[in-house]
Amino acid sequence: MASLPRVDHTYPHRVRFRECDPMGVVYHAHYIDWFEAARTEALRSTGSSYLELMESGIDMPVLDLGASYRKSVMYDDLVDIDVMWTLNDSQTRVRFDYAVRRHGHEDIMVTGHVTLCFVDRDRGRPVRAPRLLTDILAAS
Amino acid sequence: MASLPRVDHTYPHRVRFRECDPMGVVYHAHYIDWFEAARTEALRSTGSSYLELMESGIDMPVLDLGASYRKSVMYDDLVDIDVMWTLNDSQTRVRFDYAVRRHGHEDIMVTGHVTLCFVDRDRGRPVRAPRLLTDILAAS
Amino acid sequence: MASLPRVDHTYPHRVRFRECDPMGVVYHAHYIDWFEAARTEALRSTGSSYLELMESGIDMPVLDLGASYRKSVMYDDLVDIDVMWTLNDSQTRVRFDYAVRRHGHEDIMVTGHVTLCFVDRDRGRPVRAPRLLTDILAAS
Amino acid sequence: MASLPRVDHTYPHRVRFRECDPMGVVYHAHYIDWFEAARTEALRSTGSSYLELMESGIDMPVLDLGASYRKSVMYDDLVDIDVMWTLNDSQTRVRFDYAVRRHGHEDIMVTGHVTLCFVDRDRGRPVRAPRLLTDILAAS
Repeated sequence: MASLPRVDHTYPHRVRFRECDPMGVVYHAHYIDWFEAARTEALRSTGSSYLELMESGIDMPVLDLGASYRKSVMYDDLVDIDVMWTLNDSQTRVRFDYAVRRHGHEDIMVTGHVTLCFVDRDRGRPVRAPRLLTDILAAS
Repeated sequence: MASLPRVDHTYPHRVRFRECDPMGVVYHAHYIDWFEAARTEALRSTGSSYLELMESGIDMPVLDLGASYRKSVMYDDLVDIDVMWTLNDSQTRVRFDYAVRRHGHEDIMVTGHVTLCFVDRDRGRPVRAPRLLTDILAAS
Repeated sequence: MASLPRVDHTYPHRVRFRECDPMGVVYHAHYIDWFEAARTEALRSTGSSYLELMESGIDMPVLDLGASYRKSVMYDDLVDIDVMWTLNDSQTRVRFDYAVRRHGHEDIMVTGHVTLCFVDRDRGRPVRAPRLLTDILAAS
Repeated sequence: MASLPRVDHTYPHRVRFRECDPMGVVYHAHYIDWFEAARTEALRSTGSSYLELMESGIDMPVLDLGASYRKSVMYDDLVDIDVMWTLNDSQTRVRFDYAVRRHGHEDIMVTGHVTLCFVDRDRGRPVRAPRLLTDILAAS
């Protein structure tokens, strides 16, 4: 399981007891929560934010997601979630790729991706990524 | 830990793996989720519903909650959540009391309560319970 | 988005307020929870259960998952989660495919899959599916 | 709603989209998750940790909890969760009190408490707080 070709942001997370199951490891669904936090902070690191997009009338529903689990993350582990974003050519979708590592280690425990589109809330229809986002993402 | 003085509704739930922690028992916060599901179905059982209230412009924010944990509930247990509702005298708040039992058993494992008020969404201010609810709750 | 080629089990779920986000629809990660509940009841419907497997010393960690979101599910919707299982040829993995519909409708809102393997807990290593499961799954 | 008499630790949290409901505010149950994270970091700040306790054979099940909701916390708010711990006289229970503020503000939005006891895992029975914890907590 290879690391990401490019890391746009790294989000740290301390594993909570609530996130661990009777096998003593992180329950698989909780990585999806971390993915949200990681892309939110990735956007913020650019100077924009998901909140700013929302306040401008743009919602970003999730279209698809995937995750592959290679090694288990344990309670109280400090993990780093690497994020890489990719805007598609028509600028209607953004894909975030993720790699979860234990802090200070290169070994990838879990990978995943989430694809979102842009919806004009008032008109209720898909639109292209707003300028403030394309400027940021195109620079990568 | 006594049972409820009156049971207005009983909501069954099968404990999920996701809800159990490394101690092998239900993580304490998840009972709060079950409480929501239980009062939702309690309201529905009266012929009304929380959705109907929302669609009439009433939100029901939670004011306070409490829970006491006496015995552990385990993975795959089938539990019954008993619900009792009480409208306060000024009809501005409704309190739901809960008792969690294993299905078919009288022994109370966990108790709790949640108090909600009524907010007129457009005016953004607390109001009395809507007629459709007072008629139902007063009948208890 | 086509329906499943075969439906081994259908699990009903009433959407909770907790599961809905500020867009008023189900937050994407919660479908993963429903998938767990659906495959648990699918197994139970065969006369076996995930608990029985666990008690026999077999853990079933998740290897990968995916989900595609086509239409939004709303608060208080009653949904049916169709499940189809497939054991791989070497009997070391089981894949559950899912399709989420509104109860009584054929239209698929969300699809997904989760692949799990079998681990002998004491030896800490992957094993083939236990006999009780292969007998069931091979019959499909 | 007064602030805590003493603040032993302050835990920051950025509100996630997943944590907000169709009213656009944090769903009440998620504060309970933050309480866990806050007491975990409070313990770590003393030089000990909950993980260290677990590895020494001590589990800390929750006995009871409560929360009062005064004002709504919104998506993407940065909040501070103040924590104060209190060991009971017989040293068999520890209570954590919480106050949630928006970062940089004194105004209390939500308060709560969680009481835990100490259980010797092997013997399956309640015990007094281990020395490493009493030394820390008594110093407050």
